[in-house]
Amino acid sequence: MEQTLDHSAGDGTHALDRQLPEQLFSALHDIGFDGQGITRATYGAGENAAHHLIEAAADKLGLEIRRDWANNLYVTLPGRDRSRPAVMTGSHMDSVPGGGNYDGAAGVVAGLTVLASWTAAGFVPERDVTVMAIRAEESAWFPISYLGSKAAFGLLSESDMATRRNDGAGMLGDMIRQSGGQPDAFAVAALDPKSIDSFVELHIEQGPVLLERDCPVGIVNGICGSIRYRSAVVHGQYAHSGATPRSYRSDAVIAGATLMLALQQEWIRREDAGQEMTLTFGVCHTEADLAHFSAVSGRLDFSIDVRSRDIVLLRQIDEFIHEQAKLIEKTCHVRIALGQQTSTSPSISDGALVQSAIDSAANMGIPAICMPSGAGHDTALFATQGIPTLMIFVRNEHGSHNPMESMELSDFMKGCAVLEAVLRKRSTAA
Amino acid sequence: MEQTLDHSAGDGTHALDRQLPEQLFSALHDIGFDGQGITRATYGAGENAAHHLIEAAADKLGLEIRRDWANNLYVTLPGRDRSRPAVMTGSHMDSVPGGGNYDGAAGVVAGLTVLASWTAAGFVPERDVTVMAIRAEESAWFPISYLGSKAAFGLLSESDMATRRNDGAGMLGDMIRQSGGQPDAFAVAALDPKSIDSFVELHIEQGPVLLERDCPVGIVNGICGSIRYRSAVVHGQYAHSGATPRSYRSDAVIAGATLMLALQQEWIRREDAGQEMTLTFGVCHTEADLAHFSAVSGRLDFSIDVRSRDIVLLRQIDEFIHEQAKLIEKTCHVRIALGQQTSTSPSISDGALVQSAIDSAANMGIPAICMPSGAGHDTALFATQGIPTLMIFVRNEHGSHNPMESMELSDFMKGCAVLEAVLRKRSTAA
Repeated sequence: MEQTLDHSAGDGTHALDRQLPEQLFSALHDIGFDGQGITRATYGAGENAAHHLIEAAADKLGLEIRRDWANNLYVTLPGRDRSRPAVMTGSHMDSVPGGGNYDGAAGVVAGLTVLASWTAAGFVPERDVTVMAIRAEESAWFPISYLGSKAAFGLLSESDMATRRNDGAGMLGDMIRQSGGQPDAFAVAALDPKSIDSFVELHIEQGPVLLERDCPVGIVNGICGSIRYRSAVVHGQYAHSGATPRSYRSDAVIAGATLMLALQQEWIRREDAGQEMTLTFGVCHTEADLAHFSAVSGRLDFSIDVRSRDIVLLRQIDEFIHEQAKLIEKTCHVRIALGQQTSTSPSISDGALVQSAIDSAANMGIPAICMPSGAGHDTALFATQGIPTLMIFVRNEHGSHNPMESMELSDFMKGCAVLEAVLRKRSTAA
Repeated sequence: MEQTLDHSAGDGTHALDRQLPEQLFSALHDIGFDGQGITRATYGAGENAAHHLIEAAADKLGLEIRRDWANNLYVTLPGRDRSRPAVMTGSHMDSVPGGGNYDGAAGVVAGLTVLASWTAAGFVPERDVTVMAIRAEESAWFPISYLGSKAAFGLLSESDMATRRNDGAGMLGDMIRQSGGQPDAFAVAALDPKSIDSFVELHIEQGPVLLERDCPVGIVNGICGSIRYRSAVVHGQYAHSGATPRSYRSDAVIAGATLMLALQQEWIRREDAGQEMTLTFGVCHTEADLAHFSAVSGRLDFSIDVRSRDIVLLRQIDEFIHEQAKLIEKTCHVRIALGQQTSTSPSISDGALVQSAIDSAANMGIPAICMPSGAGHDTALFATQGIPTLMIFVRNEHGSHNPMESMELSDFMKGCAVLEAVLRKRSTAA
């Protein structure tokens, strides 16, 4: 069914070299391997070394190299008309602690693989094509989402520079300086949205959909927004389990379970009605010191994470959460404090870019499906700047953020082929 | 409505002196106060001092004093015919860490208050009446239920003597020796069931029923048995919260909540059908290290505690738990390991003793209701030895096992009056 990449030259693509990504992934593994998984800490030794690796490879290819004050790396193949808005691709180089080798890095390696094939073939685009190796995407390190992308657009503040890394390694400003950047320039925008034509990010899929659908490539039609209550609490009353009849109880566990299942039922109803969302209670615990098998629980801490591409649906679910919490406060004699809400807006992929990817995959005989991204990515930040965006997912087993991440190089090459076609079309269009 | 105790002499009771219990509770508070609550550790300084206090008070009253190898204390007012089976009362002197002043101790003080009134009045019963100050009832210290009572009946083993106290203070045998006992005699039974006529234990209520029913005294018609799964686990699969559609999830939290609410619904159905039980999930937690608001949870640990006076009902609920767990394993794609079951048998109060307490309270105009004990007590161990038993509950606010325990002395005196009447009737019967 599938055409090999080398045979796709007929429709104008250039053959992609597997050796460069193979070498880069191998070197990235050596940089990040911590004995169990891959750790490339934000503004730590691993991320810094990974950026140097990409810079050296780009230098070898004769590409233009630039860094901004936050030490994001920009690798550019100059176009014929350098005044025109550039086509951009890329992703982040950092990993979560004990993560895998591909989350983030695959997108940078893919961009470099495309530019390598172009330089090898002597292909010159009409406009600049830039691969960005982004800093600090994983919020496991600093509690700021899309840190590196925000820095590039001048969206960070002086107080952000004083934020401490979660593992106590230091303050953001100091760590940027140690990596060779200039944190005092935090207000400088290295990127101007008006000078960017588009941003396309290749990334491994972090869920099982492509695997289950037996498909190597996903074309992302949008990135879910989210509504989150990370620190919700049911306040009940501790009481003797045997001596307290049901009608006298304020059982935090039962109240929490009731709320969770009410929301789960709403999810099922919404899905049955054809609406897309996810709902997760990832954290849920009684108090370690006070909970006992023979006591009704007086407190349950839990988290709520709702995601959808549909902002109206997100708002409706949020209302439903509040309604149900109020109802359950009465029926279960508890108090429910949902706590601070953090939310992100959904972003919709650019229609022309999606269509371009669909057409390219079809032309090359590469099976691809359209799907949302449930996880957030730097692409979402580019979208907030009004830049047309697209993501390309590559099939990956065992999810991400763990050492078991497992992407086949042959799938990666198929994703690169679609990326190449989209970037080529965009960079040569009038 | 209520007759004062001083006026109850008309029906044969002797006036009870409030001063002795007042002094004893005050001294017990001083012994156990740890800055916040009351701590009288099993075979620790607090329990030892409390036993010495009771012994000194009994000695002052001229009562017979005996200790067994485990250092349980027996205080006896000799009857006219010492060969007849003795009437016994009492409770335990230890507390949980940071508990209250009355759980356990009230029953011993009550017994002494009754004997003090009898010695003051020169009343001599037909048979021996013994107040037992029992050791080691609170399983917060050693993982053996009814330790002191079991020791008295010769039910402990050599390996029990090697059990360590939960706080690491030492091994049971060593701590018994340090308190003045003889752990090598572990096989000796200080008590012979055939020489015991009955055992009546006064205890504070550990739930809110008497408070809510505005009633000072409860007459316990039975002690609930239990079925417990202290370490049940739902095994799911960690997955990205945004990237994992519902149909691909093995969500441990949702599976656990579903099981809990299915069992809760069964409890409601059973209660609606007039059956008595309690059901509690006191402990419930995702993994502290691995759970995250943005990940589907791969594991939920929880406890199940079911109690009822009805052993058939307990067995049916146990079957229902297993059925539901199997069902939810399929519907939620998880594995549920209920873990080791620990259970205790229910014990039913002696009908004649219950009727005697009901009649006595009514005669004295003391409001009293019949109720089960959801909590286990030493009385349950006496019942397993075939001894007729009864418990008398005294109203208490804020539950037990916490510093807020709050029993009014006037309620305690009413409980003592019922205890006195029951013991007198039993000890003078032919």
